[in-house]
Amino acid sequence: MSTARRAEQIPREQLLDAYSAIRRESLAICAPLETEDHCIQTMVDVSPPKWHLAHTTWFFETFLLTRFARHYTAVHPAYDHLFNSYYLTHGQPFTRAQRGFLSRPTLKDILHYRETVDSAMQALLLTLDESHYRELEFLLMLGLNHEQQHQELLYTDIKHILSHNPLKPAYLETRSTKLKQTSAMPVSLAWQNFSGGLIEVGHDVSNSHGFAYDNEGPRHKVWLEDFALASRLVSNAEYLEFINDGGYRRSEFWLSEGWAVIQQQGWLAPLYWERRDDNWWQFSLQGMQAIDLAAPVCHVSLFEADAYARWAGKRLPTEFEWEQVASQHTIAGNLREQAALQTLPAQSNQMTQLYGDVWEWTASSYRAYPGYRPAAGAIGEYNGKFMSSQMVLRGGSFATPQDHIRASYRNFFYPADRWQFSGIRLAEDA
Amino acid sequence: MSTARRAEQIPREQLLDAYSAIRRESLAICAPLETEDHCIQTMVDVSPPKWHLAHTTWFFETFLLTRFARHYTAVHPAYDHLFNSYYLTHGQPFTRAQRGFLSRPTLKDILHYRETVDSAMQALLLTLDESHYRELEFLLMLGLNHEQQHQELLYTDIKHILSHNPLKPAYLETRSTKLKQTSAMPVSLAWQNFSGGLIEVGHDVSNSHGFAYDNEGPRHKVWLEDFALASRLVSNAEYLEFINDGGYRRSEFWLSEGWAVIQQQGWLAPLYWERRDDNWWQFSLQGMQAIDLAAPVCHVSLFEADAYARWAGKRLPTEFEWEQVASQHTIAGNLREQAALQTLPAQSNQMTQLYGDVWEWTASSYRAYPGYRPAAGAIGEYNGKFMSSQMVLRGGSFATPQDHIRASYRNFFYPADRWQFSGIRLAEDA
Amino acid sequence: MSTARRAEQIPREQLLDAYSAIRRESLAICAPLETEDHCIQTMVDVSPPKWHLAHTTWFFETFLLTRFARHYTAVHPAYDHLFNSYYLTHGQPFTRAQRGFLSRPTLKDILHYRETVDSAMQALLLTLDESHYRELEFLLMLGLNHEQQHQELLYTDIKHILSHNPLKPAYLETRSTKLKQTSAMPVSLAWQNFSGGLIEVGHDVSNSHGFAYDNEGPRHKVWLEDFALASRLVSNAEYLEFINDGGYRRSEFWLSEGWAVIQQQGWLAPLYWERRDDNWWQFSLQGMQAIDLAAPVCHVSLFEADAYARWAGKRLPTEFEWEQVASQHTIAGNLREQAALQTLPAQSNQMTQLYGDVWEWTASSYRAYPGYRPAAGAIGEYNGKFMSSQMVLRGGSFATPQDHIRASYRNFFYPADRWQFSGIRLAEDA
Amino acid sequence: MSTARRAEQIPREQLLDAYSAIRRESLAICAPLETEDHCIQTMVDVSPPKWHLAHTTWFFETFLLTRFARHYTAVHPAYDHLFNSYYLTHGQPFTRAQRGFLSRPTLKDILHYRETVDSAMQALLLTLDESHYRELEFLLMLGLNHEQQHQELLYTDIKHILSHNPLKPAYLETRSTKLKQTSAMPVSLAWQNFSGGLIEVGHDVSNSHGFAYDNEGPRHKVWLEDFALASRLVSNAEYLEFINDGGYRRSEFWLSEGWAVIQQQGWLAPLYWERRDDNWWQFSLQGMQAIDLAAPVCHVSLFEADAYARWAGKRLPTEFEWEQVASQHTIAGNLREQAALQTLPAQSNQMTQLYGDVWEWTASSYRAYPGYRPAAGAIGEYNGKFMSSQMVLRGGSFATPQDHIRASYRNFFYPADRWQFSGIRLAEDA
Repeated sequence: MSTARRAEQIPREQLLDAYSAIRRESLAICAPLETEDHCIQTMVDVSPPKWHLAHTTWFFETFLLTRFARHYTAVHPAYDHLFNSYYLTHGQPFTRAQRGFLSRPTLKDILHYRETVDSAMQALLLTLDESHYRELEFLLMLGLNHEQQHQELLYTDIKHILSHNPLKPAYLETRSTKLKQTSAMPVSLAWQNFSGGLIEVGHDVSNSHGFAYDNEGPRHKVWLEDFALASRLVSNAEYLEFINDGGYRRSEFWLSEGWAVIQQQGWLAPLYWERRDDNWWQFSLQGMQAIDLAAPVCHVSLFEADAYARWAGKRLPTEFEWEQVASQHTIAGNLREQAALQTLPAQSNQMTQLYGDVWEWTASSYRAYPGYRPAAGAIGEYNGKFMSSQMVLRGGSFATPQDHIRASYRNFFYPADRWQFSGIRLAEDA
Repeated sequence: MSTARRAEQIPREQLLDAYSAIRRESLAICAPLETEDHCIQTMVDVSPPKWHLAHTTWFFETFLLTRFARHYTAVHPAYDHLFNSYYLTHGQPFTRAQRGFLSRPTLKDILHYRETVDSAMQALLLTLDESHYRELEFLLMLGLNHEQQHQELLYTDIKHILSHNPLKPAYLETRSTKLKQTSAMPVSLAWQNFSGGLIEVGHDVSNSHGFAYDNEGPRHKVWLEDFALASRLVSNAEYLEFINDGGYRRSEFWLSEGWAVIQQQGWLAPLYWERRDDNWWQFSLQGMQAIDLAAPVCHVSLFEADAYARWAGKRLPTEFEWEQVASQHTIAGNLREQAALQTLPAQSNQMTQLYGDVWEWTASSYRAYPGYRPAAGAIGEYNGKFMSSQMVLRGGSFATPQDHIRASYRNFFYPADRWQFSGIRLAEDA
Repeated sequence: MSTARRAEQIPREQLLDAYSAIRRESLAICAPLETEDHCIQTMVDVSPPKWHLAHTTWFFETFLLTRFARHYTAVHPAYDHLFNSYYLTHGQPFTRAQRGFLSRPTLKDILHYRETVDSAMQALLLTLDESHYRELEFLLMLGLNHEQQHQELLYTDIKHILSHNPLKPAYLETRSTKLKQTSAMPVSLAWQNFSGGLIEVGHDVSNSHGFAYDNEGPRHKVWLEDFALASRLVSNAEYLEFINDGGYRRSEFWLSEGWAVIQQQGWLAPLYWERRDDNWWQFSLQGMQAIDLAAPVCHVSLFEADAYARWAGKRLPTEFEWEQVASQHTIAGNLREQAALQTLPAQSNQMTQLYGDVWEWTASSYRAYPGYRPAAGAIGEYNGKFMSSQMVLRGGSFATPQDHIRASYRNFFYPADRWQFSGIRLAEDA
Repeated sequence: MSTARRAEQIPREQLLDAYSAIRRESLAICAPLETEDHCIQTMVDVSPPKWHLAHTTWFFETFLLTRFARHYTAVHPAYDHLFNSYYLTHGQPFTRAQRGFLSRPTLKDILHYRETVDSAMQALLLTLDESHYRELEFLLMLGLNHEQQHQELLYTDIKHILSHNPLKPAYLETRSTKLKQTSAMPVSLAWQNFSGGLIEVGHDVSNSHGFAYDNEGPRHKVWLEDFALASRLVSNAEYLEFINDGGYRRSEFWLSEGWAVIQQQGWLAPLYWERRDDNWWQFSLQGMQAIDLAAPVCHVSLFEADAYARWAGKRLPTEFEWEQVASQHTIAGNLREQAALQTLPAQSNQMTQLYGDVWEWTASSYRAYPGYRPAAGAIGEYNGKFMSSQMVLRGGSFATPQDHIRASYRNFFYPADRWQFSGIRLAEDA
């Protein structure tokens, strides 16, 4: 989170509305699930949906209620251990790999936990004295943004969980007809040139009214060479060409680590792709579907994105090239509010799809910006301690809310990760 | 199962009653569980309770309904894959290690599966023509005994699942007062001598009216030397002496494999034992409890049983020594009907606890008896293919129904396994 | 080793001759190797040849010189740690998996170690007072038999080491012409019937003049049913039929553990077999060779032996059936003195190949005989602590010296092991 | 390597001298070793010294002789497979983890391989026609720099190999008296300020006469903020304070990945440190030695370097901050020519130890510079494919030759690696 503070504070009612809306949304995401779906952990990276519901609640209980609400008693003494994700300076978290063993507390217990914390939070918000309000406001904004991040993780984890079931159950039984899948080819891809120079990147505290994470700052100068950026994301049709050209069998396209991963894991296509009788299908939140050739490719790792770019004779953009371009564009696109919950074909050969559809792998390692200092205490563990071996992704996906994403937003995952909604935009030197 | 057939067949109504009673019992065992408890798999050996409920149903659907019931349609085409445990000649079973990923079919779906199959089974039992009845009778008896085995597994697996939860939830909130735990010491252990000679062991088809598994036969001659058997099981008090005497730190008592296991796993006591402020507690189906010194030790591996015996200057009995003695005793003891669901102190220094309380590790490897032939087809995979690297246990436990156990019954587990209700009886040369 | 003692002691000169001969033989086995070959450990089960040379020397230094030789000083204080294999009551052995890291002591150092110990042993043998001679005689015989066992391990380990080298170097450049390989088929296999009854098995102390290990006794009664034994070992030709009949793809022949092993390891044939252009070759001590169809199959695991037997409609003999037959035959065959160092075709359809060629997997688990007691102290760890999860093999191989094998000899390995010279003889019920 | 070419070519005799000198040096490094030491591989990252000797030879054979020398025949057809490290576009390399299994070719064979290739190289150098000379010159310079890198790896791998031996053999029996170890404390550490601004970094082709790797370019602009750099490396004394202050037990100093590594590996100090009776010792190329408090700490991972910096309230420099400072300094220090083969105390509180002693971990991920293009073909695999998950180290160590290091030189290792000669220099924001 950002240690920077805006000049004016947010009115209490507005905060309360935001709190209620975001908390409700988490429940809405889980509504189509069966009780049993809430308990499953299909790999260490995945958390059971029930755990997400509890952990986001724990965040408010631990960092706000326990601190600001007089006479507040924790709902259950064991929850502080069970639902602490990774805040080691706060306490010893429950073993991540065993989150799927937690049949208790039950979903019902956790819904009760949410209700109790929500009531206490509403009371706190309306009654806290002015002297502490500013600090609460900051932590509450952090908690809400934190919950929004977990909402996207709910989508990615639910997809992973359902995909491991041979019954291939759909999360959404049908999808809107206006998002109808076609076998049309993507619109043509154009290249747009950008001048380099000494630019500024990162969240601009002085000039911004919104929330940002601490890892988006400090705003600082960066030198860019001239570059060009593809007008849209790489489509399934294009990625299929790469596959058909032996992309997964030709070592010359791959980073050494990536080549090792695809050998060991036997990867032949993006995650969730499945070949049936010479056609490629994919498991989606809408169940098994034929590949939509015009839509952006999704569920590729950095290694695949990088190999694709090398095969195409291009490269991935740096996070600063991306930010330089994106900061000139309005935040709009196939974001969560569209309710598509899948990638959609680009509609023009102007610069598009910067926001939404898929998180775009960049060529940049996830490292601290010059002058970066994490906050003191457990909150300081939010972002800073993950700054090794991961790569930056930008722009949000179809599962990211519009009010959560921005040009300076830095997402980060390991280069072999691909259960997130991650894709590819190409760049090249001018 | 035994290929031998008794002369007289069991009346249909009697079979139907047995079927209904045993099927109901599985549901009764799961009744205290939450929906979420039914989904969890805490290690590869453990299956989610929901899976046990479905697999036992699959057995009847696959080996009886599909075969004998005209016009019977399988409840769901995928269940044959999902709920096949290990019958490779029948089809490719779903990966054992991923049973905990099966949030679907839901518990509700599986209860519906059970009901549908039960109805069809009842109809079949009452209507099948006489010419096929004998074969059905045999397979039904096998299916019912199979379900009884899974009922004991339900208890061991539920215990394992709940034990992995830091909330340490009890399966049974309270236990009967007449089984009240005391800190009294066990009754004194006596030694009873037995003459050896050329004896017969194994299930006697010609002389028996009951069911037996194929691995209990053929009945055959075995030469025994004179031997002595302890009058009761090894108690927690005695096992604690072994621990306190450095039993887990002194290599001289241990088989080489066992020593490696306790080093790697860091074992210092039986499974579920936990030291708190110089006292030993154990997780039980009744929640965390102080160790009952007078009760038999439970949840030890063969390696621990063998090391204990060597420390005590004794040995484990062979399965034939055990059978020779047990076949002279009535089947009675702390079996499931007692509803204790934990080990209970011996009440006399006469030969006791042969049946019930804990399965007794023997010195015998699990191998085929002379002349053993498994049945043809998938049913032949029931027992025979497991005859390597495992050891025989005898006598049943507090979770074994009285009508399921007998002197010739051979249970078998790997020497490092200890999540079963397994304990120790000592023997010595005469 | 056997705790039993013979009435008459062996003359000192005779012992000394035996000592010198056996110690020389270890060096002769290593003579064709390069210095570098002596250091390599290709899997945990394999020890570097240099380590075998040192460990066998350590045995004499530790259990004889340190005990009986006044003023004897150990050659190097660290060797007691480095060359202790598994005698935990003697001290903490060096990690087995890291034997291949011991570039020092060098081969030259170890040869010097051997010379020093040999001189001291010779002096000890000639000067020890009569009162201790009997004990020394026993330990020395144990040490010599121990070294003979390691000589066979030298052959199996050297073969494993050289086989991992893409240069496929031969241990022996040429082989005797009279052992010339042919594509002839094996002699026909006959079945010989044997009557069962109450027999005695195990080493007979009172009636024998030779050495035996403790695990071969006590001699005891066993009841056998009538049985038949194949006149010769299973040949490569027959095993090839099993392969060609889909033996490695059909689960119905396999123990469950065995099926898991061949899936995980991708086994399609015995160890060292290699398919080249539709022909099967094998890596041998003589380099790459075409399969000799008439010769016995070698380098199969118990799982493969058992699956082959089931495919053939037969079974493996128990160790007692084997011993009952073998004890009626003279110890002769393709043993080490023949210098063939590979399996050779049977020459007759009379009972043959009982001794030599390959160790024959039996259907018997390796467990203690009734009344078995290991010796006190470290020597007691020689055999007894390995009596779990292993299977008995009988009869010796082409790498076993004639004076080392006998009818009661029990070798033992894990059912998945196949780098030993192990093969198959079939049995069936009468 | 750099695709850039200098205007003037190097005279043939000069190249020949360089070739001979560098090739001799590899042999000199191995001279103190026993034959057996040449075969050992103590972890996957380590290669047997023999393999280094062969692989560096393979480089010349493959990329120069096979290409330019008419009638040249490879010394052995299998060597191209055995000694290819990772050039996948050239062929399938032998499994890295099995390099320690290659007892053959013997050391003697490999020395012969070196001699044969050296003769052929000398002939080639003197006879190649002018039209190909330029290309040969480039590849030869690359091959020599490649061999110099492997010389440093020889030192790090030899140290690792010898350290795994309980005999703790010294590589160098004694060390020069003028490098005598003392318990003196390090000279005081000073901070030097540097102005930021728009600078140029990377190898300057137009302005340089020497060799550089391709990953050092293209030279490009970078914006730096003002910063300060510590005048010397972090000493053992200072690192010991970190240890004594609970550095390895306090999660707040560690990157999340680093914390996981030290838990899993049980790290409590730098690699090779060993606590004996309350004193810290380290295994060195000179054998076991007491820690020299005044000397720079060595054998720390990036995770330890980063945690130390956070504990100290400082940070690591970026690779560009380091380069900006180092490019103002002459290349001098405790480099290989000093023959110290260990870290030595700083002698002044002026900026020192930039070159030599230890490779300095930087805060920079190893990624491509803007406009970087690897060469076509196998040579292009030299550097580029490793640009993920690794961190840049700068400045060379006591094992790096003076003519091999430069300000723009980028070494790279994984953040958990610590068998290299790696240490810490602190930086801070101005």
